[in-house]
Amino acid sequence: MTGNWNRWGPEDERGAPNLVTGAMVAAAAGLVQTGRVLSLGQLLDPGMPVSEGRTELSHYMERDGGDYAIGGRVMGRSRFSDDVVVMGMHTGTHIDALVHVWYDEELYNGHPQSSVRSRGASRCGIDKLGPIVARGVLLDVAAHRGVDALAVEGGAIGPGELQACAESQGVALGAGDVVLVRTGWLGACGDDGERFFGGEPGIDVDAARWLAERDVAVVGCDNYAVETIVPGVTAGFPVHEVLLRDCGVPLIESVVLDELAASGRHEFLFVVSPLPLRGGTASPVAPLAIL
Amino acid sequence: MTGNWNRWGPEDERGAPNLVTGAMVAAAAGLVQTGRVLSLGQLLDPGMPVSEGRTELSHYMERDGGDYAIGGRVMGRSRFSDDVVVMGMHTGTHIDALVHVWYDEELYNGHPQSSVRSRGASRCGIDKLGPIVARGVLLDVAAHRGVDALAVEGGAIGPGELQACAESQGVALGAGDVVLVRTGWLGACGDDGERFFGGEPGIDVDAARWLAERDVAVVGCDNYAVETIVPGVTAGFPVHEVLLRDCGVPLIESVVLDELAASGRHEFLFVVSPLPLRGGTASPVAPLAIL
Amino acid sequence: MTGNWNRWGPEDERGAPNLVTGAMVAAAAGLVQTGRVLSLGQLLDPGMPVSEGRTELSHYMERDGGDYAIGGRVMGRSRFSDDVVVMGMHTGTHIDALVHVWYDEELYNGHPQSSVRSRGASRCGIDKLGPIVARGVLLDVAAHRGVDALAVEGGAIGPGELQACAESQGVALGAGDVVLVRTGWLGACGDDGERFFGGEPGIDVDAARWLAERDVAVVGCDNYAVETIVPGVTAGFPVHEVLLRDCGVPLIESVVLDELAASGRHEFLFVVSPLPLRGGTASPVAPLAIL
Amino acid sequence: MTGNWNRWGPEDERGAPNLVTGAMVAAAAGLVQTGRVLSLGQLLDPGMPVSEGRTELSHYMERDGGDYAIGGRVMGRSRFSDDVVVMGMHTGTHIDALVHVWYDEELYNGHPQSSVRSRGASRCGIDKLGPIVARGVLLDVAAHRGVDALAVEGGAIGPGELQACAESQGVALGAGDVVLVRTGWLGACGDDGERFFGGEPGIDVDAARWLAERDVAVVGCDNYAVETIVPGVTAGFPVHEVLLRDCGVPLIESVVLDELAASGRHEFLFVVSPLPLRGGTASPVAPLAIL
Repeated sequence: MTGNWNRWGPEDERGAPNLVTGAMVAAAAGLVQTGRVLSLGQLLDPGMPVSEGRTELSHYMERDGGDYAIGGRVMGRSRFSDDVVVMGMHTGTHIDALVHVWYDEELYNGHPQSSVRSRGASRCGIDKLGPIVARGVLLDVAAHRGVDALAVEGGAIGPGELQACAESQGVALGAGDVVLVRTGWLGACGDDGERFFGGEPGIDVDAARWLAERDVAVVGCDNYAVETIVPGVTAGFPVHEVLLRDCGVPLIESVVLDELAASGRHEFLFVVSPLPLRGGTASPVAPLAIL
Repeated sequence: MTGNWNRWGPEDERGAPNLVTGAMVAAAAGLVQTGRVLSLGQLLDPGMPVSEGRTELSHYMERDGGDYAIGGRVMGRSRFSDDVVVMGMHTGTHIDALVHVWYDEELYNGHPQSSVRSRGASRCGIDKLGPIVARGVLLDVAAHRGVDALAVEGGAIGPGELQACAESQGVALGAGDVVLVRTGWLGACGDDGERFFGGEPGIDVDAARWLAERDVAVVGCDNYAVETIVPGVTAGFPVHEVLLRDCGVPLIESVVLDELAASGRHEFLFVVSPLPLRGGTASPVAPLAIL
Repeated sequence: MTGNWNRWGPEDERGAPNLVTGAMVAAAAGLVQTGRVLSLGQLLDPGMPVSEGRTELSHYMERDGGDYAIGGRVMGRSRFSDDVVVMGMHTGTHIDALVHVWYDEELYNGHPQSSVRSRGASRCGIDKLGPIVARGVLLDVAAHRGVDALAVEGGAIGPGELQACAESQGVALGAGDVVLVRTGWLGACGDDGERFFGGEPGIDVDAARWLAERDVAVVGCDNYAVETIVPGVTAGFPVHEVLLRDCGVPLIESVVLDELAASGRHEFLFVVSPLPLRGGTASPVAPLAIL
Repeated sequence: MTGNWNRWGPEDERGAPNLVTGAMVAAAAGLVQTGRVLSLGQLLDPGMPVSEGRTELSHYMERDGGDYAIGGRVMGRSRFSDDVVVMGMHTGTHIDALVHVWYDEELYNGHPQSSVRSRGASRCGIDKLGPIVARGVLLDVAAHRGVDALAVEGGAIGPGELQACAESQGVALGAGDVVLVRTGWLGACGDDGERFFGGEPGIDVDAARWLAERDVAVVGCDNYAVETIVPGVTAGFPVHEVLLRDCGVPLIESVVLDELAASGRHEFLFVVSPLPLRGGTASPVAPLAIL
């Protein structure tokens, strides 16, 4: 399947965020009522759980208060603290660049696998994605099911459930929307990384296609991979394949949605601005819902 | 001087961004006209210039297209790219946390220097700052002077010049504004890191005080340290001392302002959402002007 | 206690390795019989267990075979692989510099705690230690007790046991010796890092003093901290205090001793050559026993 | 050319160091006279010059004296310093694993290029090399020419010059020797990394073949790539190709040889013990000459 290939020309590396017009941005800004700003990003805590095989987040101080206490040189009277991270780009709440997943040696829009080398991705990297400002829509599937959180087993969300959830909330999805699906999984797992990364409720591949057909710009979820993963049952990452590679829809993972859900708002101004790392495959982010 | 200490209580670690009310956010959202979204952040390019003594940005791929070309195991049919950075938190366009600069063993709001240790800052770190959504105001001093860029010598900007610039542009600064001062320096230096970090035009300490008195929420500039630095003439970082430590006003450095200046807009919806790194002293960011 | 302070002058930062004279080195070389070379170092395996709070070992390739398979530029016909590590200096088998542990604000030889800053240790760092070539003596306490490995409980080794062990082996400790104490702990724990770092058999503080009094140059052990650690029973690191700080005796930890023990040799030419990292607190090493 | 392929069996990943027998090690130990130990390794200094495109050495403290000065928790009375490096494996004096250079999709001994992936080299990595203890032979070509240092132009060293140099020194190369060729380049360049990495005197490809034919175990040099490199004249790395890939002879680069040369000794016990990093392409080392 090559859902949105060539839709924005053969050179395009940005995908579905192209669907957001200036008029849509202006309309989304018009959704702001109280001006409350909610961060949907996790605290980036050194040593926090990461999925298996990935690098843990480390944080080092190049200058700190202790240095001055034991004789460090002051500039004029100014004292400084400086620091460095070693950080996987898929750490904490993050947005996947379109290059993150592909199959059959072709990335989104037919760009070749060979553009992804040890020095980074020359195609479809996070530096090509740019910021996304759009209408955000929360689909609170956990609330729709009447549970705190979906379980891993039985946690697959199909298109019918997304549609019913939207209707019950009184919102209609539209082109250029950023859709945030709430499963409750992140909140339910808390600090238990082994549980959080051990399988998850999430959307199924039909739901992914359904969302892409509705021309959404971005899909986010409060789990680690957006899609339903049942150990020993599901295989591969078909939702990633459909959304990132076929349709050019970026994914935001580990989105913090509980406070947004508690606000009662299902439509809002959504803003995310990834770090424009040349050739990067993702970026940690703190997305915003402006209510 | 302890400008804003205790203004938001003895425990406050956020400073002047507290000045932005929900009503101000809503009003700023009302400034959106065309919905054009401008990123004000530099490309984060591995090996890009950093100031002396800081760690260079490095980017490593943990999986890439080459691995699959030589037999890497595919999951289902999914192929992945993953990556890691070693990154100074003051790399590229970045926002300084209030902990970044202090003097006399006390940080902003009287928090002790001893809270800044090898494991990070337990007070006034970037994790305490949170997102900032506000009215952005561009003060295009370069245009006001009729030059492409201010020089290092003669590049000090005082309060009178900021005021005259604002008046000539027809904007009035107000409480909770994010003020972006354009010197042209970043654009003039291009890739020449030695020139860029070798001194800079910028605001002087009187201008810093004047801005703090106007209750601005944040100050940004298209140079590396906001303030005028003339090698062999200026000493220390008095603007950092006044704004970060005395008044709790975060600084955004190396802001890309040329395209914004070319847009002709001096008021806009401004958004920045730092990485909430526990104990971090800054965060690379791609701030947004939404026109 | 200031055991060896000032013994090699007030500026000394090397400690007990000063005891090894050229004549001792030459004599130790005379111990070589078969010429068999045994490495006593662990494999440095990315993601291997490290003690709590330390950074995991990560390894990244800057160029690899995959890059060439997908079109990477060949120089002439040469193809390259290059790589980078993020590595704690106390990872795997390693030697502690004298700066690693101290008390009362003074390092070995009275050097001040204030010489140990965020940019590294200007006193007693691993760059000051230099290589150590000497007679190695294996004290196989596990064999002496007739067990595969000592347990955590009951695993304290006192001076009497060291002496009895040496006598039963027919070796006498002398000035300038590198003493390697075998508990069997590393081999018994295998890949179980939680067990390995959860407590350990090892020498007690009296044994540490006894070794220092015998003027040994270095002490090594097949555990993670040389000394007996029983969770909830022992407190602090008194053996580190006595050997590193009071007596200037470097420690080698996580030494691989099972194959050496199986060789039946208790005296041999010992060589270790730490990475001379300026200001480092330790170095991973692969020490050698040359039989 | 497949010089030593299959010589030690089709699975061999160690190459010419296999030539060193136990008897040779014992004989080399017999060369020790005064017992003086010379380190041939550079200081590993954070920020030191590295060749273009490689990662700079960084060093971070996880705990230091400053932390204790401002209230850090003491364990018992023990105080600690701990640290981390980000380090290219080809930093400073280092030994290249056989995997470092190849051509035509085959590594040393016919191992496939496809064994070198983002997670490291499963074939011919530094973990497969092991320690090398052997007779060291210094060929002081600079002294033989009567200059402090060879220049880049005219700095190619052929087999005839090596032979003449050996004869004038009264040493004969033999199987299993570690040959160290002194050009004076490292000492002449001092801290000038731009000069050091901008071209170099060194052996030519005929000398490489001549050394391999003499069955030497290792070749080292006081330059950054062992081989003659004249910008705009030489192309690729033919000496690397012949020695590493064809003949399985590891290379040691940036060896510090001036003090050894000053000692007047041309034969000695040589020891190097690389960090056994799984899948690594090289290791920083401090090789030893024991006189």
